[in-house]
Amino acid sequence: MNLDTRPPIFDFSGWSSQHLTRVEQALSQWVGLDAPAGLGEAMRYAVLDGGKRLRPLLVLAAREAVASADGPDAALRASYNDAALRAACAVELIHAYSLVHDDMPCMDNDVLRRGKPTVHVQFGQAQALLAGDALQALAFELLTPDDSAIPAGVQARLCRLLARAAGSAGMAGGQAIDLASVGVALNEAQLRHMHRLKTGALLQGSVLMGAASGHADAAVLEGLSTYGAALGLAFQVVDDILDVTADAATLGKTAGKDAAHDKPTYVSLLGLERAQAHAQALRDQALAALVTTGLPDTRALAALATTVVNRSH
Amino acid sequence: MNLDTRPPIFDFSGWSSQHLTRVEQALSQWVGLDAPAGLGEAMRYAVLDGGKRLRPLLVLAAREAVASADGPDAALRASYNDAALRAACAVELIHAYSLVHDDMPCMDNDVLRRGKPTVHVQFGQAQALLAGDALQALAFELLTPDDSAIPAGVQARLCRLLARAAGSAGMAGGQAIDLASVGVALNEAQLRHMHRLKTGALLQGSVLMGAASGHADAAVLEGLSTYGAALGLAFQVVDDILDVTADAATLGKTAGKDAAHDKPTYVSLLGLERAQAHAQALRDQALAALVTTGLPDTRALAALATTVVNRSH
Repeated sequence: MNLDTRPPIFDFSGWSSQHLTRVEQALSQWVGLDAPAGLGEAMRYAVLDGGKRLRPLLVLAAREAVASADGPDAALRASYNDAALRAACAVELIHAYSLVHDDMPCMDNDVLRRGKPTVHVQFGQAQALLAGDALQALAFELLTPDDSAIPAGVQARLCRLLARAAGSAGMAGGQAIDLASVGVALNEAQLRHMHRLKTGALLQGSVLMGAASGHADAAVLEGLSTYGAALGLAFQVVDDILDVTADAATLGKTAGKDAAHDKPTYVSLLGLERAQAHAQALRDQALAALVTTGLPDTRALAALATTVVNRSH
Repeated sequence: MNLDTRPPIFDFSGWSSQHLTRVEQALSQWVGLDAPAGLGEAMRYAVLDGGKRLRPLLVLAAREAVASADGPDAALRASYNDAALRAACAVELIHAYSLVHDDMPCMDNDVLRRGKPTVHVQFGQAQALLAGDALQALAFELLTPDDSAIPAGVQARLCRLLARAAGSAGMAGGQAIDLASVGVALNEAQLRHMHRLKTGALLQGSVLMGAASGHADAAVLEGLSTYGAALGLAFQVVDDILDVTADAATLGKTAGKDAAHDKPTYVSLLGLERAQAHAQALRDQALAALVTTGLPDTRALAALATTVVNRSH
């Protein structure tokens, strides 16, 4: 009999490698196989075998955090887990499509992504445009499987959260503000607003989609929402820091491009040291919000917040 | 007392102008108002005050056709009508985004659409790309309103139908096949397959989404599905015919561009006369399929099939 009542040390590395395997397998099974050949190839190139999969891990960690409220119905529990895996893949597809379009010549004109030629370099601009469009549609297709045990209410809620996070009041809106901000002096509030939309909305949406793959009461949702907002902003602050401190080999993409494009960043606004302190403070906000949820096990979410701030690429 | 038991003559012109007013008002209320200024303007420019609105009318006509099975619950009936109006706008947003992206220089490089400069000419390529992306997300947002009386099952079904119609096994897939077909000799089966995806999937999806905004049994769905497939193909055959017989002023877009781009069309494959006969035959198939549904009133759907084949632009 084990009399040690302390919770076991959380093995985040084991946790994430186990969940990453599930996500990679699911993406490989779901992306581009029923598409016309060239399009399917471009879709799979854009999605498979690359990326940190931060958003899918946030979905799955949030799902695990709320699983304590599942109740005794094993079939329902299984359907929630299925919903969460689909949601994890769906947010990654939205993220992947945004990178494909963002890299195109009329946007950032980037030729390198995750150490590989970008999709339009590899497949041509027209195919890249279509692949991005098809990936966005596929995200919603994954969330609404026919003949599935996932309750319709969960399917509809996941679509609602994803559409809002991806659209003009979320990611696409943030990109439009970004577009209009090149060479413009933003203050910190304006910069924060842009990033809340551009990257924050989908990161926060990932957390809320994980929570929506199951039951979560209002207090839990509010705590997770605050966690997601703080983590989303921390992610962007660290991104800005890495853009000036890391090299292209570590980043897997072109470094220093924000400064080269005269884009406002947290580093240009706050300086490197204050930007680093800001990232730490946001991580602490995220961790404090987890405590307010009262959920019995939020260790994976906590570890993800720490990972986001400590990452080197 | 009126002893004339013949159904009254269907006033299609009155029917469509009434429904078009509803669609225009709803689109104007729902598109781009909560987006950052430049993006919202581009989204509204792409969607408002233009287009035949064929897809929304198909949704609303199909909804009316299945309304006879609504049952006595007035609140439920109202929620179905709300769902149908949202679905009507959602399919139009998908159609509109596809035109914005399709017109871009890396695709068809068209400068004129509905008699106006295309979105990328008016707002720049980056904004056009983002506006298209945001319109696709908005389509799914419209289908999943929060705090709405629309049953979650209807919301999920509408998202499912739209995602499949828009994605790599539907519209985007058809565009990819089209892209790969320039200068390639397609036979009729290959041409039909391309068009079934490129334009047919969304037209058929519109009909099915109208039917999904309410109750429809399997026989009804099968009949409406056949109707939608025949109408979708007829639409494309007529498009090919108009591309060689109409001028740009009537079309509101560049005429003769298929031939100029060496794209395979029904006219290049069958000749003008046989293409015209084919369009008539497809209309007859569509009308026959309506009869198989056993629905009491499919006059709006029938009138739409005739309009599609007889249109001059």
